[in-house]
Amino acid sequence: MTRLHQLRNALAEQGYDAFLATVRSNQLTFIDHPDPTSVFGGLPYLLITPKACVVFPGLWVSNACRDLLTRCEVITNELGDPPGHEQLVTYLKKSGIKKLAIDVLGADVLETLSKEVSTMTIVSEAETIRAMRRKRTPEEIEMLRKTAAIGDAGIDAAFSVVRPGMTPRDVEAEGVATMLKMGCERAVIAVVTGPSTQYLDSGTDYRRTIEVGDMIFMDISISYKGYLGDQTRAAIVGRGTPAQHDLLEAVRQSFYQVRAALVSGARAQDVYAIHCRNMERKGWRKYFYHHISHGVGLGGSDAGPSINATSEDVLQEDDVISCEPGVYVPGVGGARVEDIIHVTKDGPVPLTRTAIERIIPI
Amino acid sequence: MTRLHQLRNALAEQGYDAFLATVRSNQLTFIDHPDPTSVFGGLPYLLITPKACVVFPGLWVSNACRDLLTRCEVITNELGDPPGHEQLVTYLKKSGIKKLAIDVLGADVLETLSKEVSTMTIVSEAETIRAMRRKRTPEEIEMLRKTAAIGDAGIDAAFSVVRPGMTPRDVEAEGVATMLKMGCERAVIAVVTGPSTQYLDSGTDYRRTIEVGDMIFMDISISYKGYLGDQTRAAIVGRGTPAQHDLLEAVRQSFYQVRAALVSGARAQDVYAIHCRNMERKGWRKYFYHHISHGVGLGGSDAGPSINATSEDVLQEDDVISCEPGVYVPGVGGARVEDIIHVTKDGPVPLTRTAIERIIPI
Repeated sequence: MTRLHQLRNALAEQGYDAFLATVRSNQLTFIDHPDPTSVFGGLPYLLITPKACVVFPGLWVSNACRDLLTRCEVITNELGDPPGHEQLVTYLKKSGIKKLAIDVLGADVLETLSKEVSTMTIVSEAETIRAMRRKRTPEEIEMLRKTAAIGDAGIDAAFSVVRPGMTPRDVEAEGVATMLKMGCERAVIAVVTGPSTQYLDSGTDYRRTIEVGDMIFMDISISYKGYLGDQTRAAIVGRGTPAQHDLLEAVRQSFYQVRAALVSGARAQDVYAIHCRNMERKGWRKYFYHHISHGVGLGGSDAGPSINATSEDVLQEDDVISCEPGVYVPGVGGARVEDIIHVTKDGPVPLTRTAIERIIPI
Repeated sequence: MTRLHQLRNALAEQGYDAFLATVRSNQLTFIDHPDPTSVFGGLPYLLITPKACVVFPGLWVSNACRDLLTRCEVITNELGDPPGHEQLVTYLKKSGIKKLAIDVLGADVLETLSKEVSTMTIVSEAETIRAMRRKRTPEEIEMLRKTAAIGDAGIDAAFSVVRPGMTPRDVEAEGVATMLKMGCERAVIAVVTGPSTQYLDSGTDYRRTIEVGDMIFMDISISYKGYLGDQTRAAIVGRGTPAQHDLLEAVRQSFYQVRAALVSGARAQDVYAIHCRNMERKGWRKYFYHHISHGVGLGGSDAGPSINATSEDVLQEDDVISCEPGVYVPGVGGARVEDIIHVTKDGPVPLTRTAIERIIPI
């Protein structure tokens, strides 16, 4: 069953006549096109009825939508036509739609609709849609596996060129070029490097080059046909100090423990606490201050779940999530290790496959 | 005179005790650091007083800011500390500041400040700051020239690899890798290509490869040490049809005319009308529907001016702006040509220098 069928069944069950999607990840998930990001990045409005996907592209991508979204009804927009939101209101007035589900709608459009189509009931079903999308389909998991494979190739390419004297940008260039050539529509790598005497966190000094004695980690973020890819690997440039090896090993071991805990039924805060305890034991609790995990899917991370200090989420089968413990210790360095994990009935299965342990030959 | 001196003089003249910047482009412009984007992407809050630049980094980049922003007063934030906005309120309560200029401040923080520091007058000076930043300094123009040179190299590298059978991503990869290696912190290229029978606008079909008979254009967007770079070049893959050559030549000639009109005192709508008239004469008015120009500077385009159908701006000396007419004609193809222009007392001076006319040897 496609996502579109699934949505239409749910709408029918709840007595809705249509769903209006403005959130890009929802549009990509439900639009009737096998590869929508090849055609558009996002639309102002997508209306899904029992029989049609109606696209309101506005002016800029009107021609491309008309030519390429051949299974949709495209409300074209030429220079001089009223803007997309007015076309939407006109369409809804004539549509006979009595009960409309929405995700997120601007206050101005919502007000206009309430006034102009006063007989229509409008209900936000953002949370229902999110829950539906959170449970990944086999097709989505297959696409996330391909996306993760591109990430593997990118991080391998980037690590392969690391040498003292290079800048973080030189390294990023290698990995990004690899991933774009493999078909990503977006690819970035945060290359975080520093001497043992400097903090490593989300800030870094990009003026300095990579030097012997640095701890280094790379965090990629990519989009492949709309699917999010994300992974992190860490290493030491040169032989490193015992303290640096201790830090790197502590993060790796904590990563393995956290990853093993990503099973259906696990509570987010219990998972989060594993890494906190591990870091506490080393005296580094205050040097870990980000989340451990977010959802990974078509259109990004918004379908959840989240694993952090305050999340009330409970893991479930067919969650696909990151697993990314790290720590950044003054005077030593920083490390983060991240995989993408499919939560299956048999336990956590990594979609990312490239080696956790990285050796930089210098 | 540095931007920081300029700001402090303006604040003193208007009787302000400090300026609170939350907008990234304002922070990059006024912070006391020679190369701030090498250190941080943006901060929650930067407070500029007559004597100090006070940084409220929040938790994530606290350590990096403390170590690297050595000429600033950094209000560090460790795990368990109150969030950055509370630290800001506490600081302002003790500061004795009576009159505070701001750019954009969240309604919640503004409300807290009004309540907790009720003796302080808060005035938005976003427009004054924008006008100040719009007039580019010689140092900024020199940096924009370097940024444009990187863009030149990127677009040349991308065009050099174009061959039938390649994907737009293959081409983008080449240019992006070149520009990252030259030091950009961000680089993307929109490679728009299509057969003569397909519309080319902001939407395109990324599934198809580049083929003989395509019209192709590439629009780069980069950031180098925080400075925006932007340029577009267009070409035909193979010999092309007479109609395609006519279109490309019409856009180029219109580009030269518009560029020549970018002089101090020119009204935005008059400049915009030049390209509209040129396209009208060819019967293509409805196939041109975007702006002609936006400001280009440190932190992006927000300092203006803008040239489009509704802009009331008038060009002035030391504006740095894009010049980007284009047209996208069904059944023929699309083209856009874009330079970055410095408006000088002697007329428009392009900062981008790479060839307008591009030959793809196949």
